[in-house]
Amino acid sequence: MLTPIQGFPERAVLTEVGPRDGLQSEPVFVPTDQKIALIQSLIDAGLRRFEITSFVSPRAVPQMRDAAEVLAAFRGRDDLHLTALVPNLRGAEAAIEAGADAMVLFASASESHNLKNVNRSRTDSLAGFADIARLAEGTGVALQGAIATAFGCPFEGEVAVQAVVDQAKAYRDLGMNYITLGDTTGMATPANVIQRVQALRPVLDGVDLALHFHNTRGVGLACAYAGLSMGVTHYESSIGGLGGCPFVPRATGNIATEDLVYLLQESGVQSGADLDGLIDAAGLAERIIGRELPGQVMKAGPRLKTATMDSVRTANG
Amino acid sequence: MLTPIQGFPERAVLTEVGPRDGLQSEPVFVPTDQKIALIQSLIDAGLRRFEITSFVSPRAVPQMRDAAEVLAAFRGRDDLHLTALVPNLRGAEAAIEAGADAMVLFASASESHNLKNVNRSRTDSLAGFADIARLAEGTGVALQGAIATAFGCPFEGEVAVQAVVDQAKAYRDLGMNYITLGDTTGMATPANVIQRVQALRPVLDGVDLALHFHNTRGVGLACAYAGLSMGVTHYESSIGGLGGCPFVPRATGNIATEDLVYLLQESGVQSGADLDGLIDAAGLAERIIGRELPGQVMKAGPRLKTATMDSVRTANG
Repeated sequence: MLTPIQGFPERAVLTEVGPRDGLQSEPVFVPTDQKIALIQSLIDAGLRRFEITSFVSPRAVPQMRDAAEVLAAFRGRDDLHLTALVPNLRGAEAAIEAGADAMVLFASASESHNLKNVNRSRTDSLAGFADIARLAEGTGVALQGAIATAFGCPFEGEVAVQAVVDQAKAYRDLGMNYITLGDTTGMATPANVIQRVQALRPVLDGVDLALHFHNTRGVGLACAYAGLSMGVTHYESSIGGLGGCPFVPRATGNIATEDLVYLLQESGVQSGADLDGLIDAAGLAERIIGRELPGQVMKAGPRLKTATMDSVRTANG
Repeated sequence: MLTPIQGFPERAVLTEVGPRDGLQSEPVFVPTDQKIALIQSLIDAGLRRFEITSFVSPRAVPQMRDAAEVLAAFRGRDDLHLTALVPNLRGAEAAIEAGADAMVLFASASESHNLKNVNRSRTDSLAGFADIARLAEGTGVALQGAIATAFGCPFEGEVAVQAVVDQAKAYRDLGMNYITLGDTTGMATPANVIQRVQALRPVLDGVDLALHFHNTRGVGLACAYAGLSMGVTHYESSIGGLGGCPFVPRATGNIATEDLVYLLQESGVQSGADLDGLIDAAGLAERIIGRELPGQVMKAGPRLKTATMDSVRTANG
């Protein structure tokens, strides 16, 4: 067993977002039984926390129209933590009814992106969250918050650290016990990760800070490295890198869970996940979606899978 | 201008290996004038150091049969540093004749890979290097060394740090002033990068230590981050990520120069390279090769290229 790289935590807590964030970005509706099989394969690979679905309008987002069914297949299992994305009060009612462990509420750190994404101002988003918080009281369903465009906005460019801090404080004051910084369009860099973690730590006492990176510009795992070097323990990722970047046709979105676990494992950070099992699950995801996924370890295999000397060609160095 | 991340150097020195390492791995022969155009576009983007070709058997490696012509197009320019890979004495004679600034000699840190790659033992490789060193004396052509499989061997698995250290010492004693650790099959990890840099530093006084990563398992830039955190200044990369992994069909090889430069730029490390120019050059490389290259920034564009609000679709967070 490796010891962690200096400054890295001993353990990381992973949330798999492929079933929601990943599949919601795919153009096709994945049949419910295939979604359930994929989630089961991820559980078999040691994952325990899932952003499993979203309770959104089935007309607007048909990919998630089976939210209650997917949740029903796993709800009530004490060893799992199942969250559902919720855009409004109606979604929150459905998520509570369906038995989610937590609801994820989301707004952007930049006004233009919030307007574009949910068609309301950030102030209105926060007011809506307060209504949901009242609804959730006493139900046992926890509240989590995602801050979209936390590392930059595709419309406005840089996003001020203070905007992220203010939003995190507002989330905290609403009782959220887990706050994710979302790298919506792949603008996170190691330097702005470090900067945000430093600024947020003093205001998030008792709240889990999670990082959710995209690999849109190739530095997704370098950003995770920067987060680990700051001692951040919670990360979100998507099996195989499921879920494209909505902004650029050929660009990738979420970092791949198996690549993140490879980085963790080789850096001496435990996660409870089994790399071989994740590679199998990534293969299943690829077959379900019917296109090549951007994950790398699923193609190359684990590090010490040795080849025979006859099986390879070489090319001088 | 950003200040460098803590522990990072202020400046990095990049060597572009696309014209040799990249194009040598491609199945097709790229016409000489297209190679020259690609190198020129990289010079226009601010790069100054190139592994520009290799003097190998034109029967064994037809991709490099125009080595002297490619070198002739740029030789004698004081602002450029042009190296050529050389496998043996005959190649060394040709490289000196053609006017390379330096010759790159290479052997593997693992015996099986060296046997497979160059069909001789490591001891015999080093004996051959001594002959080349004698040949080079007084010619003004410098000697550089590459240590292949420095982070792991596809046949043997882990490679001992001491084997890398011993080989680096042997290179140093032959008068090499620049030594590269090659991540031949993508087995470098941040932890084993840190370990090797720590072990090599005391024995490489006055020698430039360079790191050459592959992104085969997705952690190429995380490894670069680890190298930077150790203060390493010299890196090798390939435009667009040209050059596949010879071991796994779908896996990627070299890290992409423009992605590395993006990481450097966003981490406050100067390199003299212009990201927009590199993105153009990566596009040219893609057109020349006729297939999609794995570089990410070439697809997504620079970080602050803002979109208009009408041009994008969003998908809730």
